[in-house]
Amino acid sequence: METVLKGRGKKVIIGDGRPTVIIGERINPTGKKKLAAALLAGDLEIVRQEALAQVEAGADVLDVNVGVAGVDEVDLLPKAVRLVMETVDVPVCIDTANGEALRAALALHKELNPDGKPLVNSVNGEEASLARVLPLVAQYGTAVIGLCMDDEGIPATPEGRLAVARKIVERAEGLGIGRDDVVIDCLSLTVGADSRAGWTTLQATRMVREELGVNMTLGASNVSFGLPEREVLNGAFLAMVIAAGVNCPLVDAARARPFILAADVLLGRDEYAMRYIRAFRRKRL
Amino acid sequence: METVLKGRGKKVIIGDGRPTVIIGERINPTGKKKLAAALLAGDLEIVRQEALAQVEAGADVLDVNVGVAGVDEVDLLPKAVRLVMETVDVPVCIDTANGEALRAALALHKELNPDGKPLVNSVNGEEASLARVLPLVAQYGTAVIGLCMDDEGIPATPEGRLAVARKIVERAEGLGIGRDDVVIDCLSLTVGADSRAGWTTLQATRMVREELGVNMTLGASNVSFGLPEREVLNGAFLAMVIAAGVNCPLVDAARARPFILAADVLLGRDEYAMRYIRAFRRKRL
Repeated sequence: METVLKGRGKKVIIGDGRPTVIIGERINPTGKKKLAAALLAGDLEIVRQEALAQVEAGADVLDVNVGVAGVDEVDLLPKAVRLVMETVDVPVCIDTANGEALRAALALHKELNPDGKPLVNSVNGEEASLARVLPLVAQYGTAVIGLCMDDEGIPATPEGRLAVARKIVERAEGLGIGRDDVVIDCLSLTVGADSRAGWTTLQATRMVREELGVNMTLGASNVSFGLPEREVLNGAFLAMVIAAGVNCPLVDAARARPFILAADVLLGRDEYAMRYIRAFRRKRL
Repeated sequence: METVLKGRGKKVIIGDGRPTVIIGERINPTGKKKLAAALLAGDLEIVRQEALAQVEAGADVLDVNVGVAGVDEVDLLPKAVRLVMETVDVPVCIDTANGEALRAALALHKELNPDGKPLVNSVNGEEASLARVLPLVAQYGTAVIGLCMDDEGIPATPEGRLAVARKIVERAEGLGIGRDDVVIDCLSLTVGADSRAGWTTLQATRMVREELGVNMTLGASNVSFGLPEREVLNGAFLAMVIAAGVNCPLVDAARARPFILAADVLLGRDEYAMRYIRAFRRKRL
């Protein structure tokens, strides 16, 4: 199954046997005071810098999220998306919980790049979310990330998360959105708070991949929150979830890329380790 | 399924849901010129130092291999096993392709520690190996590592390796050796030479674990041979294979332990990450 995303200059294909696609997570004010303050002041310079830095660090797609309390996302999100599109040529992942902001950003994206195809982050299994997001995905012909949570929260079991993924895929298909355009995120909680958190995500990933065959993302950095040597935990977790089916993780490209390239070598997605060796030689590892 | 090993002072249990057991690989002259020269001269001081250093670095079991061309293993292997047993209290893994040396080392081990239980490294699917090793394993009541190769070499496919594992388990059971005392090694070749090598090992590991339910080891360092940033590749591979079923890898404890502890946290085998945090605080990560 292949999910095709299109930026202004670059097409990205997420699919079986292909190298893992890196979605850069850093244009997001959550936990970033400096970026949050800049966004509140309407200053997008950090967004521009992060766009350049992440693509330089190997990001294939850039997530764009400007959600801070006090920011008018309907106004600011399209501006940030425009700036990213004018700064780099990779596809964007439009990240908001605000339906009007999503609509405005999709309209702007369509205007700037009529042949483009962004990723929408995200829909989930809540009825309100399905009703808000999926019609826009269908209307604009984008791909969409489906989070395995619903009106009851995040299911504690792998089976529960699979059930939400199944529901999202079915609802999408009901609106004419192919499952090749639904990218499932099984969600990763913090192992420091719940020892079963990593296993649950890993098992859910295997089950969703096995049953639905969809492409899969994961915000894989939270798992280590509050623990020492986070890069070791994050690197090990990335390797595990990529082996289980995640093929377009949402990560800090600079930190995660060595492990992602290594995983691709180990899974036979990098013939003669050419990409790995090249990245190493360019000191981008 | 639980494999119990017993040293002079320490019992080690390999089994489902338990922390990963580290078998220290460093007492082995392959690729180590200094150790090879010392062994040829009958000097075991490096063996003593490596025993101490590996246990300090977190090894739970120590592999002992003195196989160098020119060395009389029948004489030297029991001496090295004795020295390791007198230096540290962890179980030993007696590693030789020489049947007489194996017999001599097992007899010495029995004499020094009548209640002990070492691991034998290794038997494989070759008829000569099965006939040489399994009767000694049965006689001395040890556990044994079974390598997934036979008279035809190392099978290229996961199915082929599973078939060898099945044969070894059946032959062992035929001699009264329970499958809880057979630890399978699916073998890891070098991804630099064959892009499918990592995937094949990973898939074989999943299949053996699924069908036979046995405990599993893997010499996991070869996979990265000849490539840059070997620790990233080895760390990612360890995480993948542990998630797939390997629960007593044969590794350089000092290098591999951070990723092994991280994998245990992520797989819910380290409640509240206590072992991980403790190791970090002691700067043993």
